[in-house]
Amino acid sequence: MEIKIKIRGYHTDSYQHVNNARYLEFLEEARWQIVEEFMEITDFIQNELSFFVVNINISYRSPAKVNDVILIKTGLHKISSKSAVFRQEIINTATGKICIQADITFVVADKTGKAIALKGEIKEALNKIPGV
Amino acid sequence: MEIKIKIRGYHTDSYQHVNNARYLEFLEEARWQIVEEFMEITDFIQNELSFFVVNINISYRSPAKVNDVILIKTGLHKISSKSAVFRQEIINTATGKICIQADITFVVADKTGKAIALKGEIKEALNKIPGV
Amino acid sequence: MEIKIKIRGYHTDSYQHVNNARYLEFLEEARWQIVEEFMEITDFIQNELSFFVVNINISYRSPAKVNDVILIKTGLHKISSKSAVFRQEIINTATGKICIQADITFVVADKTGKAIALKGEIKEALNKIPGV
Amino acid sequence: MEIKIKIRGYHTDSYQHVNNARYLEFLEEARWQIVEEFMEITDFIQNELSFFVVNINISYRSPAKVNDVILIKTGLHKISSKSAVFRQEIINTATGKICIQADITFVVADKTGKAIALKGEIKEALNKIPGV
Repeated sequence: MEIKIKIRGYHTDSYQHVNNARYLEFLEEARWQIVEEFMEITDFIQNELSFFVVNINISYRSPAKVNDVILIKTGLHKISSKSAVFRQEIINTATGKICIQADITFVVADKTGKAIALKGEIKEALNKIPGV
Repeated sequence: MEIKIKIRGYHTDSYQHVNNARYLEFLEEARWQIVEEFMEITDFIQNELSFFVVNINISYRSPAKVNDVILIKTGLHKISSKSAVFRQEIINTATGKICIQADITFVVADKTGKAIALKGEIKEALNKIPGV
Repeated sequence: MEIKIKIRGYHTDSYQHVNNARYLEFLEEARWQIVEEFMEITDFIQNELSFFVVNINISYRSPAKVNDVILIKTGLHKISSKSAVFRQEIINTATGKICIQADITFVVADKTGKAIALKGEIKEALNKIPGV
Repeated sequence: MEIKIKIRGYHTDSYQHVNNARYLEFLEEARWQIVEEFMEITDFIQNELSFFVVNINISYRSPAKVNDVILIKTGLHKISSKSAVFRQEIINTATGKICIQADITFVVADKTGKAIALKGEIKEALNKIPGV
C-alpha cells in the first residue's frame, strides 16, 4: 500500500526540511488509508473499538524539501497477543533515498480504554491488512 | 493581557518565517489564557456552553523568525447581540514591529450548538475581560 | 479548481471538529495546487519572486468531523495594483453545507522582500489562474 | 530541567487526547530550552553546526486531556562517538501518571550536513547539559 504526498512550504521548518512531527501526521494518514481499504472499519466503530499507538520508533535517514514528492509504504509487520506493529517507510522520489523508517506499535482498546487480546475475529480483521 | 512566546524552528516554514496557520494557534493560546484569568470558566463548562469562532480577519504585517520573541496582546473589542470580538496584536520584540493584527469574532453556543444571546449573566461574564 | 481531503483524527480538536488553524493549511494546499497547474511557477522561482499572504478573512460557517470529505474550491478573485485576492470555499460533502469561506490577499515580493507592482508579465501570469 | 505546558483544545485530536505528533513539538520545545540554558548556542551558530535528530523512540503510556498540565523532564542520557541521546519524560500532573517516555538520538552536523565526531570542545559543550 503506497500513497504519495507533495511537500509544501507549510510542511517544512527552519532547516528547510520536513519537520520531525509532521512526518508522524504523514504516517498516520497512510495508516488510515490502509485500514480503510482493507478492514471493515465500521465493525470497529460499531463495537466501539479504537486503535491506540503505544510506541513509535522512527529513524530519520535523509531529508525531504519543498516540492519533493514522497512515497509512503505501509504494511502490517507483526501481530502479538496484545499489540501489533505497522512498518512504514518513506521514500523521497526526488532523491531516490529513504527518508524515514518507522515501526508503529498499537493496541486495540475497547470502550473502557483497555487493550483487548488480538485473537479470533479481531486478529482475522487485522490479517486482511497486507504484510511487510 | 500579554503573553510571550519564543519562536522555534518547528514554528516556521520554508520561508524561514512563522507560518500563517501557526499564528492562529498562538492567538488561540492567548485567548484561552485571558479567558481563564478573567472569566469563571467552570460556570461555562457546567452550563455546557462553548466558544465558537465564526470569523478571523488577520493581517500579516511583518515576519517573525527563529529565536525572535513575540508578544501577544489580547483584549475584548466589542460585544454585539449574538457575537463578540477579540482584538489581538502580535509584536515582534526583536524588531519592534507589528507582526499580526487580528479580529476574532466568536459566538457562545449552548449544548445544541446554537448561538445564544449575549445578554444578562453571559454579557457580564464577558465584560470581565479587559477591553481594547 | 477543486481538491478533496478526507478528515482524519489528527485534523480535529477537542470539539471533534477540524481546528481553525488546520483549515489554513488546507487552503494553502489548494492554492499551491492551482498555482502549479496554471502558472509557470519555475519562472517565479528563477526570478526569485515569492507569494506573501498579507491578509486572511475567513468565516467558519459549519463544522467538519472525522471521516467527512471536504471539497476545496479556489479561484482568483481580484488583481489590484500591488495585491491580489484568492477566494476559497470549503464544502463539507457529508452535510452539503459550506464549512469555510475565505478571501486570501497576497502580494508578490522580489528577493529583497518588497512587494512588486502587479502589471505586465506578472499580471498576465496571475490571470492564467481561473477566476471566481 | 523541567517545563510545564497546559493542554489546550488545539493540542488534542478526535480521541480528545493530545495527538501523537503534537508531543514531538512539546519535546522539541523542551530540548531547545535545555540547550539554550546550558550550552553556548551562539558558538554553535557561528561554527554553522546544527542538531539533526536521527531517531526517536517514544512510548505513549497514558493520555493527556484539555486543561491537564503536563511536566516535561529532559536530560542528556548518553554521548557516543558520533551521536548522543536526550532522554525525556512527560508527566501528566492532573493524573500523576507518566504520559510519554522518549529517547531522542541526534548528531551534530557541520555546514555540509555531515555528522561530526562528538569529541573535544563539542563533547565538553554537550556535557554541560544535565544528565539523566
